[in-house]
Amino acid sequence: MVSSINLNGDMGESFGRYRIGDDEALIGLVRSASIACGFHAGDPTVMAHSVMLAKAHGVSVGAHPSFPDLQGFGRRPLRMRPAEIEAMVAYQIGALQALAAAGGVAVTHVKPHGALNNIAHEDAECARAIARAIRAVDRDLIFVANALSQMVTAGEAEGLCVAHEAYADRTYDEQGRLTSRQLEGALITDPQTAVRQVLRFLENGALVSASGRKMPTRIDTICAHGDEPTGVPVMRAVRQALEAQGIAIVTLPELLR
Amino acid sequence: MVSSINLNGDMGESFGRYRIGDDEALIGLVRSASIACGFHAGDPTVMAHSVMLAKAHGVSVGAHPSFPDLQGFGRRPLRMRPAEIEAMVAYQIGALQALAAAGGVAVTHVKPHGALNNIAHEDAECARAIARAIRAVDRDLIFVANALSQMVTAGEAEGLCVAHEAYADRTYDEQGRLTSRQLEGALITDPQTAVRQVLRFLENGALVSASGRKMPTRIDTICAHGDEPTGVPVMRAVRQALEAQGIAIVTLPELLR
Amino acid sequence: MVSSINLNGDMGESFGRYRIGDDEALIGLVRSASIACGFHAGDPTVMAHSVMLAKAHGVSVGAHPSFPDLQGFGRRPLRMRPAEIEAMVAYQIGALQALAAAGGVAVTHVKPHGALNNIAHEDAECARAIARAIRAVDRDLIFVANALSQMVTAGEAEGLCVAHEAYADRTYDEQGRLTSRQLEGALITDPQTAVRQVLRFLENGALVSASGRKMPTRIDTICAHGDEPTGVPVMRAVRQALEAQGIAIVTLPELLR
Amino acid sequence: MVSSINLNGDMGESFGRYRIGDDEALIGLVRSASIACGFHAGDPTVMAHSVMLAKAHGVSVGAHPSFPDLQGFGRRPLRMRPAEIEAMVAYQIGALQALAAAGGVAVTHVKPHGALNNIAHEDAECARAIARAIRAVDRDLIFVANALSQMVTAGEAEGLCVAHEAYADRTYDEQGRLTSRQLEGALITDPQTAVRQVLRFLENGALVSASGRKMPTRIDTICAHGDEPTGVPVMRAVRQALEAQGIAIVTLPELLR
Repeated sequence: MVSSINLNGDMGESFGRYRIGDDEALIGLVRSASIACGFHAGDPTVMAHSVMLAKAHGVSVGAHPSFPDLQGFGRRPLRMRPAEIEAMVAYQIGALQALAAAGGVAVTHVKPHGALNNIAHEDAECARAIARAIRAVDRDLIFVANALSQMVTAGEAEGLCVAHEAYADRTYDEQGRLTSRQLEGALITDPQTAVRQVLRFLENGALVSASGRKMPTRIDTICAHGDEPTGVPVMRAVRQALEAQGIAIVTLPELLR
Repeated sequence: MVSSINLNGDMGESFGRYRIGDDEALIGLVRSASIACGFHAGDPTVMAHSVMLAKAHGVSVGAHPSFPDLQGFGRRPLRMRPAEIEAMVAYQIGALQALAAAGGVAVTHVKPHGALNNIAHEDAECARAIARAIRAVDRDLIFVANALSQMVTAGEAEGLCVAHEAYADRTYDEQGRLTSRQLEGALITDPQTAVRQVLRFLENGALVSASGRKMPTRIDTICAHGDEPTGVPVMRAVRQALEAQGIAIVTLPELLR
Repeated sequence: MVSSINLNGDMGESFGRYRIGDDEALIGLVRSASIACGFHAGDPTVMAHSVMLAKAHGVSVGAHPSFPDLQGFGRRPLRMRPAEIEAMVAYQIGALQALAAAGGVAVTHVKPHGALNNIAHEDAECARAIARAIRAVDRDLIFVANALSQMVTAGEAEGLCVAHEAYADRTYDEQGRLTSRQLEGALITDPQTAVRQVLRFLENGALVSASGRKMPTRIDTICAHGDEPTGVPVMRAVRQALEAQGIAIVTLPELLR
Repeated sequence: MVSSINLNGDMGESFGRYRIGDDEALIGLVRSASIACGFHAGDPTVMAHSVMLAKAHGVSVGAHPSFPDLQGFGRRPLRMRPAEIEAMVAYQIGALQALAAAGGVAVTHVKPHGALNNIAHEDAECARAIARAIRAVDRDLIFVANALSQMVTAGEAEGLCVAHEAYADRTYDEQGRLTSRQLEGALITDPQTAVRQVLRFLENGALVSASGRKMPTRIDTICAHGDEPTGVPVMRAVRQALEAQGIAIVTLPELLR
């Protein structure tokens, strides 16, 4: 078992008058926050607020770039060319960097959101476009990539520090992909089931599919979905279980730099 | 008369398949480019292209933030609170900074666009919100502000380097404001008329209203509107006239740092 | 006192994954629903759902057009020309008419939202643009207009059937305008205070300002804000109080045609 | 050979200050106009203008609904569920209907745009969602569908009047699909080549692929792309060639009702 690990949560997914997620609760549980950048959620005011919330809790800040699709919450695949994806990701990282700088904080990681993340999991070209964007903006940014995905390969090929990520509240298929949200059982809503999945992953040094297949990988960071009503109880249970094992919960820069 | 001056132009105002402005012609005339940041015009791909165009011509790069209003090209006043304006401006500066960094260029100035610029001309609270955003993101950024506007006051109060701007192709009223585009004669389309206005300003060390009133001010940079069909011929004539006077045409950082 | 009246509520203000308002509770209390049309809130899927919800409860359906400002929930004034406003309002009415037709329901009223409503209250030119749009699309549509506003005048001048509206949960100033949301006391959150305001209005046949000034007017419909957490309890209390007075609560077409 | 046929063109694809297409030239050549509805192009003001332009030329008016993607001009596939597509298409039809009604004109056809059209060509589920939307809004609307596509099947299954469409300026593959714009030779820019393609189609009563494969089909309407610089000369040449054959060029309602 590892001696330390990161917990990360998606935050700042409110927009204007619209509220999603219980950021105030989640921020006390995670050590890194992936903040929406205005394309699937978030607006400049929400982003500024989210940065200050993370800062107040000593939580490290990352950009959570997405396809431009507020209506679909960034979960609808959109076909874009690699150069478009690269510019789009750079744009979003920079927007958050400025709001973070204004708040006296540095952006230290990038984690693609939703459909962009799903596509980049398997599509090497898309994964490389994201990795190039990250490196071009700031080569010290940590690329939070699904374990066993093309993003890991692309990030390492670009010389980026890659954080291998596993989900506490999503099941995996036998190729190491998140089970599609269209399918039954994709989402784990019971905190203790999520805890068992996380511990199984860490004990095996592997993702384990719903069917039991073990797929060895490093795991640096665990995520649960802040926009789901069960995200906070899942994250709380995971955190308690990891701490009970004597595992230190640290920020991404503390873990990887 | 001054020995050197800057010429700046608004660029990158295309969006997706839509084209506005003859950036390829204008870039050879100006020394600083104010690039749209996706709110009134521009998209990440256009921004990346505009940065590379400026770099190829040794033209310094600035952000041209706006209200979020693509349909109105950022020219329709929108009421926002100062904290919202501050976050919105920071967001746009950062987005361009990232695309500039990816292109190996630094953003060195910020110039508000359209209705945001018009409001900040007279509204001290709005001007201060913009100035705070600039300083919070990077205190070395040059604030390109209408001469004699509240933006000059606000920028100096925040300790920013302020470039005092005059327009070659817009007339001024007796309060030193741009004549409203709603009114006849707001826009100067004849290149030689624009040249005469610029020379009159520089000879007098003052803006001169359409009615002849002189309003003394420093003038660091001259702008003509790239989105107007007459922008390029106006800028070409102004440049030739200034060079004929022996005035060096330099970038904003060359002039002010 | 009147023998029958309408209660109307704003609905369908969710967007994509974002939820606002407890439409399922409000729909059982009102008799007319003003449905957001995608500009300040709502999307085609939400609109289709809202139409079916209204139909299931026998509630009449109206369009709730707004400035295009999802981030500001349509509450930020945007300066547009009358012809632009006219086209924008017609567009939104038509969009809802099509979704209503698809659901087997007719759109029977139009009520401007937010900043558009506030501006049209006092600005005759804006009010007339809205009235022209309504008449041009369908002259049988009922124009739900703030009592004593320029919208009443404009609607009547265009020959429209005008429903004079009063708010249960907003206070009024001495000019008969809604007290600005920027000011303390603009919103009435206590159901019994709202009931007292409504009864005072009906007993006096007048709006009564917070300061006690009586401004005589017909009152056809009472609104409470569904996007406020207090909207449902306010509307429930108002309905009970009106029914206790023997006043019939009817749809707008039942009341006015 | 047929004795009469329709020519249709995409129009109203400007947006705010952005201009695309030479509608003033194209309107004199076609007999039916498919007007953008604000999702890939167009805004309410542009739509109102386009309706009046069509009316002035006696050209019949149709809706040209799209995925919501202004930046990608509706040409980027976006994954949406059938119910979402249905609501989205109905919304856009209705928006145009209202502006048409305001202009004293009726909307008489619907033609999907861009990626939505491409997907519906082959995807029966998407095609049916579009057909259901059309029928639900107004069962008398003519569905302009690519010849030999799933849209033809879906439209007929819903009992709609279907106009079978062929392109003058796009080549076809052996499955009767438009050759992808990503591929060389997808677009025909030479007017005489376009004329030869159209005549070959009509003489054979079939689409003919670039490779020479004949795919029999009815052809009711011919389109050329107004947003391409070659669209107007192509349409002019096609019109002259058809008239030289004695074929009457009529509106869609004249042809099909």
